[in-house]
Amino acid sequence: MQHSRSGGAAGGVATTETDNLIASDKVEGTPVYDTGGERLGSVYNLMIEKRSGKVRYAVMSFGGFLGIGERYHPLPWEKLTYDPALGGYVVDIPHERLQAAPSFARDETPWRDPLYGESLHGYYGLPFPRI
Amino acid sequence: MQHSRSGGAAGGVATTETDNLIASDKVEGTPVYDTGGERLGSVYNLMIEKRSGKVRYAVMSFGGFLGIGERYHPLPWEKLTYDPALGGYVVDIPHERLQAAPSFARDETPWRDPLYGESLHGYYGLPFPRI
Repeated sequence: MQHSRSGGAAGGVATTETDNLIASDKVEGTPVYDTGGERLGSVYNLMIEKRSGKVRYAVMSFGGFLGIGERYHPLPWEKLTYDPALGGYVVDIPHERLQAAPSFARDETPWRDPLYGESLHGYYGLPFPRI
Repeated sequence: MQHSRSGGAAGGVATTETDNLIASDKVEGTPVYDTGGERLGSVYNLMIEKRSGKVRYAVMSFGGFLGIGERYHPLPWEKLTYDPALGGYVVDIPHERLQAAPSFARDETPWRDPLYGESLHGYYGLPFPRI
C-alpha cells in the first residue's frame, strides 16, 4: 500500500498515525473509492500473516454497492493506495472485475481453504508472496 | 509474533482466523499475559508500517495493572507469542521492565517523534527493522 503524508491532521489522528505508521483501528472503517472518486465501500478488517506480521489482505465491505450486497471482498494490500485528499483508499480495479471477484458472506469461512489466498492473488494478477 | 494452531475454534472465529492469517479486529482486545499466566492487560491496536504493510507494534493497554494506570505500551510485534490454551498473547518481559518501558497517555502523540520507534526497539533489546 502507498500512503502520502496526511498533513494538518486533527488531534484525534495524531496518536494513530505518523508518516510511516498507521493504527489498525484507524484503517478499519476507512472509505474506499474507485479511481473516479466514487465511494465503493469501506475497509472491514485486515488479514495479517501471523508469522511475518505482514498485512496480506484488506477485507472490503461493499455494503450493497454495484449490486454486490452485503459481502466481503478481500483485496491484496498492494492494491490499496491512500489518497489524503479523499481521506480514503483508492483501488484501481474496474467495477466488473470487483463484481466478479472472490467474496464471501458473513457466515462463510473461505480462509479455511489453504488455497484461498493464492486464488485471491491470482485473480488480481499478483504473485502470491512466499514468506 | 508466533502463533500456534488454535484448533477446535468456535464458529465466530472461523471467518477471522486460519493457521496462517488472523484478522486485525480479532487481535484488538485479545488479552495479554505474563509468562506466569497472570493477565497484564489487552491489545489496544496495532501500528502498521504503511509502505511494507508490516505490523511493527502491538499497543498494549494495561488498564491500571502494575500500578501503571491507563497508559499505552507499544511492544514490538516480535515480543508477543500466542498461547492457544490461554486464548491470549504471552510476553516474556519482567514486570519491572514493563513498568519502566516507554508508554503514553491517551492525549499524547509519541508517534510524531521520528525516533520513537527506534527507542522502543532499543528498549526491548531488538534491532530496529530497516525496510
